[in-house]
This record gives sequence, structure tokens and C-alpha cells, in this order.
Amino acid sequence: MLFQVEMDVRVPPDFAPEKLERLKVEEKARCHALMTSGKWRHIWRVAGRYANLSIFDVESPAELHELLSTLPLFALMEIRVAALCHHPSSIRDDDR
Amino acid sequence: MLFQVEMDVRVPPDFAPEKLERLKVEEKARCHALMTSGKWRHIWRVAGRYANLSIFDVESPAELHELLSTLPLFALMEIRVAALCHHPSSIRDDDR
Amino acid sequence: MLFQVEMDVRVPPDFAPEKLERLKVEEKARCHALMTSGKWRHIWRVAGRYANLSIFDVESPAELHELLSTLPLFALMEIRVAALCHHPSSIRDDDR
Amino acid sequence: MLFQVEMDVRVPPDFAPEKLERLKVEEKARCHALMTSGKWRHIWRVAGRYANLSIFDVESPAELHELLSTLPLFALMEIRVAALCHHPSSIRDDDR
Amino acid sequence: MLFQVEMDVRVPPDFAPEKLERLKVEEKARCHALMTSGKWRHIWRVAGRYANLSIFDVESPAELHELLSTLPLFALMEIRVAALCHHPSSIRDDDR
Amino acid sequence: MLFQVEMDVRVPPDFAPEKLERLKVEEKARCHALMTSGKWRHIWRVAGRYANLSIFDVESPAELHELLSTLPLFALMEIRVAALCHHPSSIRDDDR
Amino acid sequence: MLFQVEMDVRVPPDFAPEKLERLKVEEKARCHALMTSGKWRHIWRVAGRYANLSIFDVESPAELHELLSTLPLFALMEIRVAALCHHPSSIRDDDR
Amino acid sequence: MLFQVEMDVRVPPDFAPEKLERLKVEEKARCHALMTSGKWRHIWRVAGRYANLSIFDVESPAELHELLSTLPLFALMEIRVAALCHHPSSIRDDDR
Amino acid sequence: MLFQVEMDVRVPPDFAPEKLERLKVEEKARCHALMTSGKWRHIWRVAGRYANLSIFDVESPAELHELLSTLPLFALMEIRVAALCHHPSSIRDDDR
Amino acid sequence: MLFQVEMDVRVPPDFAPEKLERLKVEEKARCHALMTSGKWRHIWRVAGRYANLSIFDVESPAELHELLSTLPLFALMEIRVAALCHHPSSIRDDDR
Repeated sequence: MLFQVEMDVRVPPDFAPEKLERLKVEEKARCHALMTSGKWRHIWRVAGRYANLSIFDVESPAELHELLSTLPLFALMEIRVAALCHHPSSIRDDDR
Repeated sequence: MLFQVEMDVRVPPDFAPEKLERLKVEEKARCHALMTSGKWRHIWRVAGRYANLSIFDVESPAELHELLSTLPLFALMEIRVAALCHHPSSIRDDDR
Repeated sequence: MLFQVEMDVRVPPDFAPEKLERLKVEEKARCHALMTSGKWRHIWRVAGRYANLSIFDVESPAELHELLSTLPLFALMEIRVAALCHHPSSIRDDDR
Repeated sequence: MLFQVEMDVRVPPDFAPEKLERLKVEEKARCHALMTSGKWRHIWRVAGRYANLSIFDVESPAELHELLSTLPLFALMEIRVAALCHHPSSIRDDDR
Repeated sequence: MLFQVEMDVRVPPDFAPEKLERLKVEEKARCHALMTSGKWRHIWRVAGRYANLSIFDVESPAELHELLSTLPLFALMEIRVAALCHHPSSIRDDDR
Repeated sequence: MLFQVEMDVRVPPDFAPEKLERLKVEEKARCHALMTSGKWRHIWRVAGRYANLSIFDVESPAELHELLSTLPLFALMEIRVAALCHHPSSIRDDDR
Repeated sequence: MLFQVEMDVRVPPDFAPEKLERLKVEEKARCHALMTSGKWRHIWRVAGRYANLSIFDVESPAELHELLSTLPLFALMEIRVAALCHHPSSIRDDDR
Repeated sequence: MLFQVEMDVRVPPDFAPEKLERLKVEEKARCHALMTSGKWRHIWRVAGRYANLSIFDVESPAELHELLSTLPLFALMEIRVAALCHHPSSIRDDDR
Repeated sequence: MLFQVEMDVRVPPDFAPEKLERLKVEEKARCHALMTSGKWRHIWRVAGRYANLSIFDVESPAELHELLSTLPLFALMEIRVAALCHHPSSIRDDDR
Repeated sequence: MLFQVEMDVRVPPDFAPEKLERLKVEEKARCHALMTSGKWRHIWRVAGRYANLSIFDVESPAELHELLSTLPLFALMEIRVAALCHHPSSIRDDDR
């Protein structure tokens, strides 16, 4: 099943730069792994903001929470989630 | 280029049912045509609301406006648009 | 899987009273049926408002949307949905 | 009587990790005790956020405040409360 | 137990004046009766708005809902409810 | 004249505990004095939040500001004020 | 005492033009009378909106409510009120 | 002096189509005249919404209000105004 | 021309008290000077909040920005600005 | 293509003054360069706030994000973006 996930990353100005860089590297690696596995189906950058729109393909809300809450940048994120389903007008079968 | 478009359809309770049905049929046909052309890349139903999350793939904001403003249900919609771009963590080349 | 669903019913003052009564009767019957089936797990009245807090137990967001969008009062409702999962502190195994 | 309680935990990035861990352990123990006593009837994790939806079953608002304000994580929480009552459509007698 | 109830009355401009007057007369009578019984402890007019701040003294949220939802003007009201309890700094014993 | 005053106390997590305790003691003493004088007519705790609903009985907005702005916890408070007046439906003469 | 009053006039598109004109004429006359009496101390048009910022000089919130709620356009207005008092930096003695 | 003006046009679904068309024609003519005169310096369509971002170049807020409030579509618009001035980083002298 | 300016001063709890006192003294002196010059026409304290409502009388938005952005407390302020103009109902010629 | 970009700069009170000055100098230089290149078409100061309204002329959302996210002050900014297109009423051909 698919979930729309919008992540705004809010980094306090006094946040240690090295720690941020390390978290970013870990975050990118995790994202790659999850995209490769198909869990993290899409990730787009929202132009002009340190934010992304993502589509997750998971088995349950529990799995979604597990994936999001263990992201390296989770503690710095403001996250909005919406459950998605196939739209009657869609010609994409796989957009469950 | 890609745009995130969120459409909430707000139908006044006293809206003529037949007109609504006609508009819905036209809307579905238009959506099919645009999805087939690749302009309307994704459309998902937001679970629980008469709303959708869509991804448009257009040449310019002008084209996006042309496509959205001529949708049969446009006058009943509340629309939010965000410009998207390729995310450095994405492994999908085509998620421009 | 469980979903938190909050429904605010907004009835326009000039809405035909008989139609409203009919919809309410149908809504109650549907609710009973869905509660009996286990799909609609909880429904509570929010004190002071024509609104409820409900917990749905469904197979997927698609099923949730099907159940909600076919409710007799759906067109008069403002609905907020949140996906739920088991809380690590919960002692209720069935609160998946 | 039942209350809907939504708790968002907002941990400042520079909050001492050990203190947070200690508070979390205490919070979990308190939650277990209150769930065992029936006061804290339900707790669900909201997928994607460090937040929960809970249903409390207490004798009065005063008791609700006592329970919430003495939670170990109270100072880090943003809390919304709504009073609930039995819904005329509910088939659950105990969902007072 | 006490509840803070804020009621904003929103009358559509095309609402039948006679019906509104009748509802107002009924509302005033109901309010008097409930204040006399002690259920409706306080009602103040918010200066500049067709709105009031009220304090209700009821046995349960269910009773609160029963009283509010049967007010003649209920269908025209936007209502916010908050559960109150005795404040440790209050010298009024009866402000439970 | 009466004013509705809602106070949310927001204590930064790193606020010195001893200073907070001292401020709380001073706040309680000030509240008692003002309630005894009749200025601070009502104070109720909002269940679930470090917040209160209060009714002040003062000679003017200037006096209200003087009383509120000199409260020991004023710098930590988010305050909303609404001017109240006697409601035509109220049977309490003193609820000016 | 002084009150800041912000009035947004929201005229439904299908509101009878003649009735609106009549109300506007009455409103202007009432405003003149109240300004002449000193009650309505200032009224400015907010550029670009059918809205005004006003300063009222009244004896009490009750008088303020009486003046506002009997304005011909009151039923079409969204009103925000804030109680004002003399600012320690003001050199205007009369800006009580 | 320059003002940022954002106009959202909200047309009720039951608004007479012919009247809307007439208003649109008048609006376009007025806009042309004002742009030709230099008063209405810029107007851009916000992609996806029946809304525009405009920059007005007027002598005073009064002139701005006169121009906006006499627009044929004014009664259907929600307008936000912000006063602008030359930015220290701008290389455009005329962006007063 | 006149501008409505609302200033909320938000002082972080850990802000150096001496620095705040110094800024307040400077702010008061600046306000006096500007009120004496007629630029700062009115300033009122909003009862219950560290905030003021002010009316500025300036030659242009640029002058308004210059005056506001150089206020000693500017960095601690949240400011909302609205351009004002003479109201057709006002009997005060000077309320341009 | 054109984008409306609104930037609010939020500087924490304890931000190092020298670092802020350095960032401001770099920001101004970057702005000049981008305005000279035509990418940053307009920048206006919003009167009364440390904020600007800008119009960017770029090839794609990706280029917009690249320009904005590498601004020296980016980490201190709250940014809102809207895609613009030529308005049918505009007489400016170049306001694509």
C-alpha cells in the first residue's frame, strides 16, 4: 500500500555541522537502500525548501513508522503522512 | 519538469447531481488522455477524502495552468501546487 | 490495520430536513453493519460537536476509502485520517 | 468517562540523550501501570510521527489532568484533549 | 465537573428572520432553565461578536453533549469545548 | 468589567528548575492575593495542558495589563484576552 | 477606555444590491453619529479590502458590544476586538 | 510606491455564467488600461489557481484602494496586500 | 500616508536582562522622538500582551521600513503591517 | 519560466553578529550576480519585515532550488515558492 509522506527538515542554526553532515550521509545511504528495495518508491525535492515529497510502498502503517522513525534525520523532521489508494481515473495499475 | 498538485473537490450540497455526474465523466476522460500523453504522470486517491495527489510532467508552469484550469471540475477544486525537482538521494533518474 | 478517522458533519442550514433524517437513518444502519463486521471498530461522539472520533480496522487504505466515501453523509463531512500502528507502550496486543 | 488525548512529543535537538532515555523508560512503565489499571484504555502510535492517539477512562477532568501532567515526558509534549461520549450509532456499550 | 464552552453563532444572511427570532426566544428560555438548574453555570457575551463564553457544570461529557446538541441554535453554532478542573492556585472551592 | 484570559505556560526544557519553582510559588501567592481582592475572579486548570482559563474583574484594560504583565510567569506565557459583558440570557446579575 | 476593532465585511455574491446600498447608507450615518459623539474615535479603510481598522472609546465592553452589534452591517461582518491601554512610550496623554 | 497584491477569485458554483463572462471582459479591459498607465505594473497568473500576483505602482494607499475596490471582480476576490520598497541588494533602480 | 503596525515582542527566556533593559530604554527614546516628529502617530499597548498597535504617518513604505527596521527591539519583534487610507465614513479629515 | 519566491529571514537572537554580517555581505554579492545574470529578476523589501518578495527567471525548478539552497542565508530562511505564468490580461510580453 502507498503513503504520501512530506518531510520538512528543520536544522537549528547552532546544530553541529559535522554531526549534520554525518547524518546526511547516513540518510542518503538509507534512502538508497530503501529505494532499491522498493519501499521508498519516489522521493522528489520540493523546490526552494529543505523538504521532500515521498511515496512509500509498505505492508502496513507499522512498517511505515519503522522506516520513518529510524531515519537518521528523523529527530529534525516535521512529517505529514496521508494514506493513498488507486484512483479510479488512473491508468497506472501499479499506483495501488 | 514535475509539479506536485493536490486537488480537493468541494461539491456544494445543492449542486445538480446530473451536472456533477457529467463533469465527473468528462474529468475521467480528460485524466485518461493526459495520463496517456504522459502529462499527468501519477494520480492517487487520498484515502477518506474527495481529493487526489497528482504529479504532472509539463514543459512549463504555463502548460500546467492550462491543463489544470481547463479540467471539467476545476471550478469546484481547491488546488495546491509545488514545483518538484530531482532529489540527490533518488535512484530514479527519471524523477527529474 | 487501524486508521484514526475524525468526521465533522457540516449541514447547511437550508438542507432539506427530511433528506437529512433519511441520510441519518441510513448512516446509522451502515455504521451498525460495519461495526458488527469489525471494520468500524470504535465510534465515539465528540462532546459538543456534530462530530465523531472513529477507529477503522481495514485491509488497506483502498478499503478505508471505499467504506468512508460510500457513507450516506459523506458529502456533508469534513474528514481527517491518520494511519495508526501498535504503540511500544501498549499492553493491548490487538491494538495493532 | 472517556477522553481523546493526542500527544506530540517535541524533543529539542540538544536535549541530553541519557535524560531522554530515562524519561522514555519511566514513561513506558507509567503507561503500562495506567493501562493495567484501565485508566489509559488505548494508546496507538501515529504512523510517521513521534506522537500517539490515546483514550483515557477517568472519573473526572481533574483525574485526567493529574495523570497527564505527571507523565515523565509531559514537559516535552504538546497535548490536545477532547471529551468523548457514547455515539448513538455505536454497538459497543462500553464505549461510554 | 466543569466544561469551558465557546459558542460562535453564524447566521447565513438569507436565514428567515422570523425563524431566527423564534429560535432566539427558545434559546433564551432554555438557557434560563439550565442556569436555574445550575447546569449552565456562567454565560458571558464576548464583546463585539455574536458569541458567548459559557461554563457548564454537568455529570459527564454525555450530559454536556445532550444539553448543547439540543439547543435551538445548535445547528447555527461553531462550538469549542475544553474540560476544566480545579486550579491549585484557586481559592474558590466550588470551582471544581 | 470582566475579561476572559487564557494563559498557556511554555517552559523551555532547559529552564532552570529552581528558578521555575520560585516563580511558581510567587505566582500562586500573587494569584491568591488577587483572587482575595476580587480582581482575579475565577481560575480553572484546562485539563491536560499547563494552561488556565481565568476571568478577571477590573476597572479598565490598563488595570488588566498591569496585573497580567507583572505576573511572575508572564515572560513564559502566551496570553489571549477577550472582553466580556453581561449576556442577555444570563440570570446572574453579577456576571457583568 | 479604548478598543481596537477590525471589521471585515463579507457580502455574499447573491445579496440583494438594494438592501446592501440601504445598509451602507445607514451604516455611514451611524458611524458619523458615533464619531461625532466621540465613541467611534478613529476609522481607517484597510487598503485593498472591504475592511476597516477602528478605535472605539467607550465606558465598558458592554457599551462596545451594544454599539457594534447594532451596526446595520453587523450580520455581514467578521469582527476582531482587542482591549487597548496607554503605552508607556506614548507621548499622547489622551491615548488612554 | 509599490504594493504586492495577491488576488484569489472565488466564484460560487451557482454564479450566473453570463454575468461572470461580462465581469471578466470588463476586468481585462480595466487591467489593460491600468497597465498601460503604469499603475498596474505587473500581473502574473499563479499556476494552478484562479489567482494572480500583481505589483501596483501608485501614489498612495488611497489610490491603491480606489483601483482595487472598483475592479469588476472585486466582490469575488480575496485580496492580500503588502507594501514594498527598494531592496538594498536590488540592482534595479526603478524597483522603488 | 498611514500604516497600521502591530508589534509582538518575543523575548527568549535566556535573553540577557541587562541587554533587554538597555534596548527598552533606547526603544522608548526612539519612540518619543518619532512621536514628537509626527511619524509615529499613535501607539497603544494591547492589554495582556507584550505587544502594541501603532499608526505610522510616513512618506512611503521605504520610510516605514527604515523606521521599523532600525528600532532597537526590531530583532525581537514579530511585525504585521497594513496600509490604511481615509474611510468614506470618517469625519476626521486628517485620518488620511 | 518565472517563480514567485517569498523569503522571511529568521535570525535567532543569540546568532553570532559577525557571522550574520559576513553572511549578509555574501548574500548581497550573490544577489547582485544573479540579478545581473537575469536569474533573479526582481527583489523587493517587504516594508516592516526582514523579508523580501522576489521573482526568479530560471530554466527549471531544479535550477531554482540550486540558486535558493546555496544562498548564504538559506539556513535562516523560511521560503514560500509559487510557479507563475503569463496572465491573459498582462500587456507585458516578457512577464512569461
